[in-house]
Amino acid sequence: MRTYLIVSGSIDDEVNIMAADWVTVVSAKPLLLAVAIAPSRYTYKLVERYGELVVSVPSVNMLRDVWIAGSEHGPEKLSRMSLTMRKASKVKAPIIEEALANLECRVVDKRSYGDHDLFVGEVVAYNYKQEAFRNNEPIIKAGFLSHIAWNKFVTFKEEVITP
Amino acid sequence: MRTYLIVSGSIDDEVNIMAADWVTVVSAKPLLLAVAIAPSRYTYKLVERYGELVVSVPSVNMLRDVWIAGSEHGPEKLSRMSLTMRKASKVKAPIIEEALANLECRVVDKRSYGDHDLFVGEVVAYNYKQEAFRNNEPIIKAGFLSHIAWNKFVTFKEEVITP
Repeated sequence: MRTYLIVSGSIDDEVNIMAADWVTVVSAKPLLLAVAIAPSRYTYKLVERYGELVVSVPSVNMLRDVWIAGSEHGPEKLSRMSLTMRKASKVKAPIIEEALANLECRVVDKRSYGDHDLFVGEVVAYNYKQEAFRNNEPIIKAGFLSHIAWNKFVTFKEEVITP
Repeated sequence: MRTYLIVSGSIDDEVNIMAADWVTVVSAKPLLLAVAIAPSRYTYKLVERYGELVVSVPSVNMLRDVWIAGSEHGPEKLSRMSLTMRKASKVKAPIIEEALANLECRVVDKRSYGDHDLFVGEVVAYNYKQEAFRNNEPIIKAGFLSHIAWNKFVTFKEEVITP
């Protein structure tokens, strides 16, 4: 599973960052993302309060921060992270400057499924690094991060394979 | 995005296979998967008819079949694929013998989001290859397939990275 950072809250108030593997696109037009968040998470409360979130795409260079975001709880962990928060374009939650991309989402639906709730957000603004995407395609050597289990991560081989 | 094969229909009647990138886990207990399928797809009709589907995890060795599943339409394409269909344990749709894993799902919810519908299925049975999973972790050298865009795919570096 690819790993993402979910930024929630407001840059003028409280901000939290969690790591999430259970993220997918669900529609191209409009561009909608689905993110599964357990109700016990601090992020859940902030997404409920603001109705917005940022899906941030980390690189392997951000692994230490991804690990803190995924293994510690509550906004206090942000002080131990070395990420730079910037004002987003359309939402109150900040974007992460170091991320390969930031997708600013406004929540349009929420459904409970088992032990998680699935938030569906419309992408209302985004930014990305030139070294990570070109012509709507990811550039593999940018180092997209995938999660194996617990503290084990991988990235992709640079060799492109075609049928 | 990781790439999956969605098997639909019934082994005694009509079967179709599509490739899908927009797939995620949404709950651990019970184990629920979400799969986005456009209403225009043949698979959509079969999932609606049977209320079941199989999420099959392809390896790089199955790339040619994944490409046919993803680029051609309707069940006729199955005759050009070289996959072996086997009776599933709990659902009418078959499983794919060559796949790294097969997750048999019973649909428990469907919601429309933009240009796709999101089917949520409960995993009622599964099987996997010993060389692909051990202790609930994927074994990277099994060759899990990820999709860059159009006919470009990648797999993972075998080097495990830890924070």
